[in-house]
Amino acid sequence: MAVKSLKISNNVIRRMPRYLRKLNELSAAGVERISSNELGRLLGLTPSQIRQDFSCFGEFGQQGYGYNLASLRDEISSILGIDRGYKAVVIGVGHLGKALIDHFNFKSCGVELMATFDVNEDLTGEMPVYKFTDLGAFCEKTPIDVAVISVPMEHAQEATDAAVKAGVKAIWNYTNAVVEVPEDSGVVKEDIYFSDSLLALEYYLAEMLDDESKRAARNHQ
Amino acid sequence: MAVKSLKISNNVIRRMPRYLRKLNELSAAGVERISSNELGRLLGLTPSQIRQDFSCFGEFGQQGYGYNLASLRDEISSILGIDRGYKAVVIGVGHLGKALIDHFNFKSCGVELMATFDVNEDLTGEMPVYKFTDLGAFCEKTPIDVAVISVPMEHAQEATDAAVKAGVKAIWNYTNAVVEVPEDSGVVKEDIYFSDSLLALEYYLAEMLDDESKRAARNHQ
Repeated sequence: MAVKSLKISNNVIRRMPRYLRKLNELSAAGVERISSNELGRLLGLTPSQIRQDFSCFGEFGQQGYGYNLASLRDEISSILGIDRGYKAVVIGVGHLGKALIDHFNFKSCGVELMATFDVNEDLTGEMPVYKFTDLGAFCEKTPIDVAVISVPMEHAQEATDAAVKAGVKAIWNYTNAVVEVPEDSGVVKEDIYFSDSLLALEYYLAEMLDDESKRAARNHQ
Repeated sequence: MAVKSLKISNNVIRRMPRYLRKLNELSAAGVERISSNELGRLLGLTPSQIRQDFSCFGEFGQQGYGYNLASLRDEISSILGIDRGYKAVVIGVGHLGKALIDHFNFKSCGVELMATFDVNEDLTGEMPVYKFTDLGAFCEKTPIDVAVISVPMEHAQEATDAAVKAGVKAIWNYTNAVVEVPEDSGVVKEDIYFSDSLLALEYYLAEMLDDESKRAARNHQ
């Protein structure tokens, strides 16, 4: 799609996985076609927002006829790069690393988990755990796209540096620490900050509690 | 602040924890005052975006003089409800639950972790693990604000229902499953979907790889 060379805003990109999740859910429930009105209602977005988001990537639907669910899923999957056969490794096999290895569905994101690495060789799990120092040699034989960084916070930068040096092209950072990648490396980075999510929840909770006490005060007047 | 009763947009709320993280970082580095220009540069936002975000909650800075870092942190912390003394429990002490219990800094979010629950009584860790069936009795004695749901996906709704029944006011859902709270319960919910983050990373990776191959093609012309 020629349109794709235009820079798409981050907000649009961030909504794409949400669309895909909802479409997968609807598809599992047997839905085959959906209007932007209905999709908007389910996601708490306006239909025009949805049409505008999709129009960034070309035309998906037919006016007045809604979207074909299967094609829409394919289009969004392709936009997100799910069909590119990315390969990943997990660096750091503590509790969080194990949770990701055992329970996170990399396959549903089109990513193949190739190996895991830790400083501790003794660890056993569903996947073989290689020595952290062997990361470079491994990636030379098997080029890796994504490194999941789930080491303890204080080793976050060290693990990131090793991954970048090994030629990894994307860093998925779970350490809650700030990690840097060299600007000229072209490596992309995505941080999962658990605290950002908790703090947003705390805001909504505060708002709800304030609304409740205001209502209670009104009822006592 | 009277302004707070206006509905603030989700995008603004979502940026608040990012501001706070950066301010904490700057504060640790000894910075005492910052302009919206500088803060914008550090966060990849425009200064006017930042001023507009803060203006949703009243006036924080002085024109031409920048923000006092300590007061700005206090204001944002208070907006987010960090000073409200929220209490939390973790339900589900598998690898993910353990990672959160051992390594996530609840305190820095103003949240006190009071207890953990699991169906498996034998688990030991840094905190006592109570029987899942004792959740209701526990919350009767110690009212809980936030339940962290880190059970296996297939038990997500069951754990959520039990938490809501026990009077918990906020659900922090780590199961990657869709969970529902009764609409009239007033309970607020925040989901952490790891896949949303990975899919966004895959998009940025695809974009970067496409840019690289375009550049390579141009150099060969």
